[in-house]
Amino acid sequence: MITGKHLIAGQWVEGDTTFSSQPAHGPAADYAQGTKAHIDAAATAAEEAFWSYGYSSAEIRAGFLTAIADELEARGEALTATGTAETGLPEARLNGERGRTTGQLRLFASHILDGAYLDRRHDKALPDRTPPRPDIKMVERPVGPVGVFGASNFPLAFSTAGGDTASALAAGCPVVVKGHPAHPGTAEIVAQAIHAAIKTCGVHEGVFSLVQSNSREAGEALVTHPLIQAIGFTGSLGAGRALFDLCAARPTPIPFYGELGSINPMFLLPHALKARGAEIAKGWAGSLTMGAGQFCTNPGVVIALKGADAQAFAAAAGEALASVSAQTMLTDGIAAAYRSGREAVARTAGVEELLAAACEGRNAAPYLYRVAGRDWLDARVLAEEVFGPLGIIVEAEDFAQMKAIALGLHGQLTCTLQMEDADLGHARELMPVLERKAGRLLANGFPTGVEVCDAMVHGGPYPASTNFGATSVGTLAIRRFIRPVSYQNMPDDLLPLELR
Amino acid sequence: MITGKHLIAGQWVEGDTTFSSQPAHGPAADYAQGTKAHIDAAATAAEEAFWSYGYSSAEIRAGFLTAIADELEARGEALTATGTAETGLPEARLNGERGRTTGQLRLFASHILDGAYLDRRHDKALPDRTPPRPDIKMVERPVGPVGVFGASNFPLAFSTAGGDTASALAAGCPVVVKGHPAHPGTAEIVAQAIHAAIKTCGVHEGVFSLVQSNSREAGEALVTHPLIQAIGFTGSLGAGRALFDLCAARPTPIPFYGELGSINPMFLLPHALKARGAEIAKGWAGSLTMGAGQFCTNPGVVIALKGADAQAFAAAAGEALASVSAQTMLTDGIAAAYRSGREAVARTAGVEELLAAACEGRNAAPYLYRVAGRDWLDARVLAEEVFGPLGIIVEAEDFAQMKAIALGLHGQLTCTLQMEDADLGHARELMPVLERKAGRLLANGFPTGVEVCDAMVHGGPYPASTNFGATSVGTLAIRRFIRPVSYQNMPDDLLPLELR
Repeated sequence: MITGKHLIAGQWVEGDTTFSSQPAHGPAADYAQGTKAHIDAAATAAEEAFWSYGYSSAEIRAGFLTAIADELEARGEALTATGTAETGLPEARLNGERGRTTGQLRLFASHILDGAYLDRRHDKALPDRTPPRPDIKMVERPVGPVGVFGASNFPLAFSTAGGDTASALAAGCPVVVKGHPAHPGTAEIVAQAIHAAIKTCGVHEGVFSLVQSNSREAGEALVTHPLIQAIGFTGSLGAGRALFDLCAARPTPIPFYGELGSINPMFLLPHALKARGAEIAKGWAGSLTMGAGQFCTNPGVVIALKGADAQAFAAAAGEALASVSAQTMLTDGIAAAYRSGREAVARTAGVEELLAAACEGRNAAPYLYRVAGRDWLDARVLAEEVFGPLGIIVEAEDFAQMKAIALGLHGQLTCTLQMEDADLGHARELMPVLERKAGRLLANGFPTGVEVCDAMVHGGPYPASTNFGATSVGTLAIRRFIRPVSYQNMPDDLLPLELR
Repeated sequence: MITGKHLIAGQWVEGDTTFSSQPAHGPAADYAQGTKAHIDAAATAAEEAFWSYGYSSAEIRAGFLTAIADELEARGEALTATGTAETGLPEARLNGERGRTTGQLRLFASHILDGAYLDRRHDKALPDRTPPRPDIKMVERPVGPVGVFGASNFPLAFSTAGGDTASALAAGCPVVVKGHPAHPGTAEIVAQAIHAAIKTCGVHEGVFSLVQSNSREAGEALVTHPLIQAIGFTGSLGAGRALFDLCAARPTPIPFYGELGSINPMFLLPHALKARGAEIAKGWAGSLTMGAGQFCTNPGVVIALKGADAQAFAAAAGEALASVSAQTMLTDGIAAAYRSGREAVARTAGVEELLAAACEGRNAAPYLYRVAGRDWLDARVLAEEVFGPLGIIVEAEDFAQMKAIALGLHGQLTCTLQMEDADLGHARELMPVLERKAGRLLANGFPTGVEVCDAMVHGGPYPASTNFGATSVGTLAIRRFIRPVSYQNMPDDLLPLELR
């Protein structure tokens, strides 16, 4: 049922070489290794497909997105079986993520039928003005073929038919996916679903390709291919920045929409800390360890004013985290990076270890550290994301230092305030700072669990996103793959469908 | 009245060194030379100003934009006198450009009062859903301090208080302008007007600075300054790409919104060519030579099917162009680049010279060339912009070759179709191609004269713009300087003004 092949414009294609998957459970399998030639074939077909798909009606695209959702649902059991074996994520998570994936495909279908995203504008002719004003209409158009990188931590919702693919296809852009090697079998089943939907709907087969790969060649070929017009990526800062740099250095630069990570700081304001410290600690431990801490919105850092309440919070958090058993991480490499990130934190001056359970292989147990505000400000390594269930409690000397810590933050996907009404004064001082640092601000919640909706921003200043205006979750994600075009005195017959 | 100083956060600041202006008419004058330290002082003040101006009401910002327009109008005579002397542009042009500049300031004032640009979104809480949905609101927020480069060819409308500055200030972003050395006196008068408006309105003085410069230091310091969050630029491909590269290479990359040039091809479809060839030729000559051809939207290239009608068109265009006298260009450097660009065209294989009047110094006379479609496709140098009144007529062998020429185009600000009803079939085939190449498509007009309105796109695929989603003219230009932010379960007291 899983062939190990690429899907390139409707054809299942073998590779000259293969790579071996590294599932968390069960036997490994061989997958075709993607090359520059595979990417070129896929991009060329995507460009060809654009001439029809890029000019198709919203009804056709919405029908296609819905058909993909249907086909994914029809493959639900296989997706969960293969997905859990490859990633080590639990069954409930895979089932939930499938619902999220089909939900966002259907959401984009209704979003494009609604049409508000087209931002249609019309300045009517004023023939009697001096000089006369021509008739000018505007509409958003798709940009052309888009490259998407599968993400390790969401084998469905941020991968082959995830949010990047859904929003690009919704816009009218064909997609070439570079599959993530952590879940090639899951990727292939999703590609089979999309292939079936292509046949059902009769859209051009070049509209979607999946190139499997565990090397850099395919990814670099994708971002540098002259026919590719934009990139969607979720992953690490190192890999993301390297690909961003390649996009910027092209003869014709293209936008790289990368979501590169975040420490998602949570500020515990004094009255909330006093009133609900233990409860918040328990909630934090849950958010921090959910999915082995492998969420972009994992709240890795808590900032509190030092004192008895902060001590009690640390004790409660330590207790809650100690009861969480070790979980399987997505890949051996991610587990190794988690442990080396932990070592970098542990050996930083002033860092105190509160919880450190032994864990080995692909397993991750939670770690908890504490550091004084001054030491945090001095040691910039602490501000870098450690991907996994590692928490740091920063004890600020006073509120001024808490604000200095906020001012020193890199860009974040989220910042959270834990507050009571009596904390409003402090919250008011922090808000303008946090707003410049993050794409989403929360009060009295936890940032994991990113709602797919109209008002969601899953992005933020660098490095949360390489593009501060972009979100990779929610309907606004479609804006990454469209561009405005004006039509001056254009006969109706020649206007895009959406302007007639 | 003109001091030769920088305006940095409300202070008139001398330079350690100066540079000399090179006016078209009248005596030269000395201007402070901008350094890294001047840019740093201006950017630091802009960041400080952001904490108030970036959170000010639309009414305050609209009042400020209107006050700037009033102050510019009060200095109308001085602006025209200094502007014409520095640039060699005629008085009517400076007066018209002032109206355009004050008009767009007022347009942005009404645009932000209207508030649609904020794209406010609200997903209400669903407490009974499993899992419960939080309350999520979204609004567009200003990005922070913005750097703007004055453009040589529009001393008012694309410079110190031009469209980039107006849209950034409208969004709530303080602005640091690197003045263009071709019109430092004009720039200073505009800065005086803004300074007066700052005092009248009581906004933070860091909200605007002008740093004069004729060297690379200030510009490079501006795009690499850590506090600057975005850049607006209109200028040449070479300078623009160098600055774009600096922006992309920053530790924290920022968007560079550059509008880098275009040849604005015009396609003469057969029936239009037959019916209105002579009339189109006359219109083309006017558009091509307007302002000595120094418009970004100058239609430098015409594509027609070869034959008697194309010959008649060339004869009529040559006649119309021959009657245009030499005009003063903006700078000696631009005039020199015009002549070397002309030489590169003239020595290209297959290029036939139809009109070449002698011109020297800062003067430009029109040139007209003709080339066969095959030679055009072979010689990519012909597809590069020659800034000035130079026209090329490309004679396509047949319609297939005309379409191949369209497919081979770089990104353009505009593409124009000259067509009759009987040309609709051909137009329908060209439209999807041209739409992928340009930000604005015109039928039966000329691209010079860019309307400032809601539906205008003055941008397009690279190199017309470094960012295909952006326009530097029209109300949509504000989108370059805003970013979406989500607020989850946030108390009303802590929301931005616009969401309360």
